[in-house]
Amino acid sequence: MAQIQALVFDAYGTLYDVYSVSARAEALFPGHGAALSQLWRTKQLEYSWLRSLMGTYADFNRVTLDALRYAVAALKLDADEAAIAALVGQYVHLTPFPEVPAALKQLKPGRKLAILSNGAPGTLNALVQNSGLAPRFDAVLSVDSIGIYKPDMRIYRLAEERLGVARENIGFVSSNCWDAVGAATYGFTVFWINRLGAPLDLHGRAPNHIISSLDQVAPLLGPAP
Amino acid sequence: MAQIQALVFDAYGTLYDVYSVSARAEALFPGHGAALSQLWRTKQLEYSWLRSLMGTYADFNRVTLDALRYAVAALKLDADEAAIAALVGQYVHLTPFPEVPAALKQLKPGRKLAILSNGAPGTLNALVQNSGLAPRFDAVLSVDSIGIYKPDMRIYRLAEERLGVARENIGFVSSNCWDAVGAATYGFTVFWINRLGAPLDLHGRAPNHIISSLDQVAPLLGPAP
Repeated sequence: MAQIQALVFDAYGTLYDVYSVSARAEALFPGHGAALSQLWRTKQLEYSWLRSLMGTYADFNRVTLDALRYAVAALKLDADEAAIAALVGQYVHLTPFPEVPAALKQLKPGRKLAILSNGAPGTLNALVQNSGLAPRFDAVLSVDSIGIYKPDMRIYRLAEERLGVARENIGFVSSNCWDAVGAATYGFTVFWINRLGAPLDLHGRAPNHIISSLDQVAPLLGPAP
Repeated sequence: MAQIQALVFDAYGTLYDVYSVSARAEALFPGHGAALSQLWRTKQLEYSWLRSLMGTYADFNRVTLDALRYAVAALKLDADEAAIAALVGQYVHLTPFPEVPAALKQLKPGRKLAILSNGAPGTLNALVQNSGLAPRFDAVLSVDSIGIYKPDMRIYRLAEERLGVARENIGFVSSNCWDAVGAATYGFTVFWINRLGAPLDLHGRAPNHIISSLDQVAPLLGPAP
């Protein structure tokens, strides 16, 4: 493996569990929490890709809200504005996956660490602050400064430029296979955290490493540079 | 409504039932036909969007094959190459929805009719020929000449340019809500055939008309220009 001088992490689904909203969803809509959080996430990604292709970027807060309104309508749930606001508000309180805090601490010495996320800057920064993980990162980068979503190649280039590290020396970590494929196609060394044992997506270059949790990255990297 | 001088139709899911492959899928994998055809279609669209964003276009035959291989793996089906080939081969024998032949015949006089599809040219033309609908169309347009998929705005512009009709005089018909939203955002007058009573997607301009089958277009248009 090329020397990895910087590690770039996806946020939603990788460091933070987007399905941690499902408990709140279940409390609001008993029996529908899991279905709502899944459809919400599916539509959130779909809208991010479609808006990117249409050239009609709107920030991830808007996309997240639109996707929630769609999901609520599709599941025929009786959601008032307070319920919608409560669910969207969860995006600044998503739960990190259990191994994440210790794994980041282990990866930090001698390397730059950054987040590269679809999230709107305000929401993303609040989430990182609230979770106590802010001190681990040299940069928290949002697609918002480019105005298009992953996996547009300009987003991966943003990390390369902002960190001042060449792509062949960047390790990229994502639990979203489509994002891992995008980053591998760009030329990062990619670690796909396949938490759920999903099949590999087949629309581009395969990730370099397939692991099941974040603490498996450090042993693959070897000693810090 | 502006005078509609040309009608442009999406093919897959709009004129032709992509789930008509499910009978063949069911024969090959008893008990899994519906799930396989649905996941196949979902991944086919997802890969078309992701490849477009990544700038790594491959034609729809390839995307369709990759999506099928993913779906087979995800459902843990034991599919040999003959089964894969049999399923992919169905794409030149998709069944038109029942009302389509008569509805097209009714819409034709005095108007240009065209297909605008993600399909690879060879596959798309074979489908149109095999279904007996070829004489109805003045043009069968594939995204392949542009090298990106819907809903990139260049695809809708292709129809405008090839037909020589301004966008405000083009009616666009699709059963795929994301495509209907894309075409409405481009500026066509859009008829969304909502065959399954789905909620409206919320990531762009809403279609102008929501109908449930193709034979509802003609009464909305009034007399031919």
